[in-house]
Amino acid sequence: MGSVHVIGAGMTKFGHLEESIIDLARNASLRALEDAQASGEKIDHILVASQNPDEFTGIGHLSTLMADSLGIVPAGGTRIESGPSSGASAVEAGFAMIRSGLAELVLVVGMEKMSEVSRERASAILAKMISKENEARYGATPASLAALIARRYMHDYGLTRDELSLVPVKAHRNGARNPLAHFQKEITVEKVNASPIVSSPLTLFDCCPTSDGAASVVLASAEKARKLGVIGDSATFKGIGHATDFLAVQHRESLTSLSATVNAARDAFRMAKTRPEDIDVFELHDAFSILEIIDIEDMGLAKQGKGIEIIKSGDVEVDGKIPINTTGGLKARGHPTGATGVAQIRDIFLQLTNRAPGSLQVPNAHRGLTHNIGGFGNNMIVTIFESNSI
Amino acid sequence: MGSVHVIGAGMTKFGHLEESIIDLARNASLRALEDAQASGEKIDHILVASQNPDEFTGIGHLSTLMADSLGIVPAGGTRIESGPSSGASAVEAGFAMIRSGLAELVLVVGMEKMSEVSRERASAILAKMISKENEARYGATPASLAALIARRYMHDYGLTRDELSLVPVKAHRNGARNPLAHFQKEITVEKVNASPIVSSPLTLFDCCPTSDGAASVVLASAEKARKLGVIGDSATFKGIGHATDFLAVQHRESLTSLSATVNAARDAFRMAKTRPEDIDVFELHDAFSILEIIDIEDMGLAKQGKGIEIIKSGDVEVDGKIPINTTGGLKARGHPTGATGVAQIRDIFLQLTNRAPGSLQVPNAHRGLTHNIGGFGNNMIVTIFESNSI
Repeated sequence: MGSVHVIGAGMTKFGHLEESIIDLARNASLRALEDAQASGEKIDHILVASQNPDEFTGIGHLSTLMADSLGIVPAGGTRIESGPSSGASAVEAGFAMIRSGLAELVLVVGMEKMSEVSRERASAILAKMISKENEARYGATPASLAALIARRYMHDYGLTRDELSLVPVKAHRNGARNPLAHFQKEITVEKVNASPIVSSPLTLFDCCPTSDGAASVVLASAEKARKLGVIGDSATFKGIGHATDFLAVQHRESLTSLSATVNAARDAFRMAKTRPEDIDVFELHDAFSILEIIDIEDMGLAKQGKGIEIIKSGDVEVDGKIPINTTGGLKARGHPTGATGVAQIRDIFLQLTNRAPGSLQVPNAHRGLTHNIGGFGNNMIVTIFESNSI
Repeated sequence: MGSVHVIGAGMTKFGHLEESIIDLARNASLRALEDAQASGEKIDHILVASQNPDEFTGIGHLSTLMADSLGIVPAGGTRIESGPSSGASAVEAGFAMIRSGLAELVLVVGMEKMSEVSRERASAILAKMISKENEARYGATPASLAALIARRYMHDYGLTRDELSLVPVKAHRNGARNPLAHFQKEITVEKVNASPIVSSPLTLFDCCPTSDGAASVVLASAEKARKLGVIGDSATFKGIGHATDFLAVQHRESLTSLSATVNAARDAFRMAKTRPEDIDVFELHDAFSILEIIDIEDMGLAKQGKGIEIIKSGDVEVDGKIPINTTGGLKARGHPTGATGVAQIRDIFLQLTNRAPGSLQVPNAHRGLTHNIGGFGNNMIVTIFESNSI
């Protein structure tokens, strides 16, 4: 079977924005199509990733709505949803459509507009992705579950508050250089430590924001990428893994390792015939600071309890050995849930085509990986791409 | 690339039911897995089709929730949505996953529970799939748009009220013999004509109900189907077409032909290398009586304006030349929106494996076709299957 390529990408600024969800998605999509030199081309399918547009914005039926709004009717149209990993799920579906021969050119657009509802309403909508029976009805929230995990991790491995704060500090350091990031301001360990407690031990700066925004990538078969003249500026799909875990955190074997990440990463590495140490740049799902440390370990980049060491060593910086979340991650780039997975893949695509913003470019980035979490740690997709630059 | 097969199916009764949406979906899924001789097998992916579970039932994040509830973690999990064609979209995504090599065994389950909200609230939720700017804000509903089309069709082609009533009469005649149908009672032309007007000229019996229910199919690669010992009782995917149309009816070229059906059918027939006259049994999307007549014409089974002739001729009956909606269609089988597309494919699968309920079995059914409409005529999927019986 032929190879499948990312041939173009587009993204809006992430933040609290004026534009409607449809305008955001249209803007990101049009930029991606232009970037792919595919404006005006026949699009076979549009895959729309969004967690809950109906309840966040009152707008539904995005599949046809986006096809119509972009002027690409009669393209097939489907919405893909797996919670905050909807974006990577949609890219996975796009890969499958092209690889199976159902399509040659697929537009993927992830979007969420979370600021139209009150903070309380947003929390209630997001709480649907944790177990009602076992968690939500006792008052648990995604943040309190992350706090539970952080507390256990600190207990088991001696992680300190100052160490944990290094994660958002790095995120903001990178975000400050990313012109599309939700937060573009550096912060300090002291500031993280002293910010209001969301759920002890996690403070405000341990938690990603709710954001508005959209991100888009264009996927193509090798033949189509060649026809469009962009195969030399593309990134090739090498591996995809997708795994679920038990919905309720209390039903899982471990609090300090997310088995869905382990399973999805194993499948992606196997398919790509590559190893963690062969990857040049990572986008990991850091919705909460503790998750980046756990992701690093579950990805096989450090032993259990040792994730913080490679953060302290500087290896995860843009110019380090294993750069992680170079564009600010969910913490600083922002987290419009349905858009995040697509934004991660867009950011890796820019790295692999040597077009990351300014000083955020990783030198000689040849292989990149994204890791997108759905639900609270229960629906993960890992993708691995390789640069096709010639 | 290898062939992809439907190897098992399950369905709950459709109607106004007591069980939760999760219980319905679980029941349909477990039956499908058992039917496929795949209970206890490793499922690579579960695809969940549902139009709007969050607003109809308050329950979200169905991808992981269903994987957990069925005990198939760590299967990948994704929800697929394209309005009332979500079910067929999910089957399409499952085909692509298997054909692309991402999966060998995929469970698809479509579900909707529409009776937990008031009739008014259900109408408001469903109205999201028509254009807000051009239609909904002027008071249009799916039923009023169908009435507009029916009125135009009657004007252009001289279709009479009595003729139109033959469509629901046939649906109920078949539904009366389908033990899982929402309505299992025959009706007469007089009863259709005299039932309350929903939107003139359409009466209550021209319109499908809102229903609760779930339907499931198991998909497998040829190799996996062989290993499970079920390839001889499977149906092989031959063709899939998926097309959108403009969201607003007023933006379309014609009121009396749905171009998304024409486009999706053309692509499906081309992929299957077959023609309309080669199909032995059809499931067409008859959410409103007028749509079955238009579907027949758009599918290439009759010339424009002549669809009613083959209904009057008896050719569309179970023992006719081109049996259509043998299990009652949306009108009598019912229409839990996200479940419908999967139910149609389940019904065709039963026909092709000679297991349709009693007198509803079409003799020697070798090729079957399903046609699922999303939105109001703007997101269509056509699938074609072939019997693999040996």
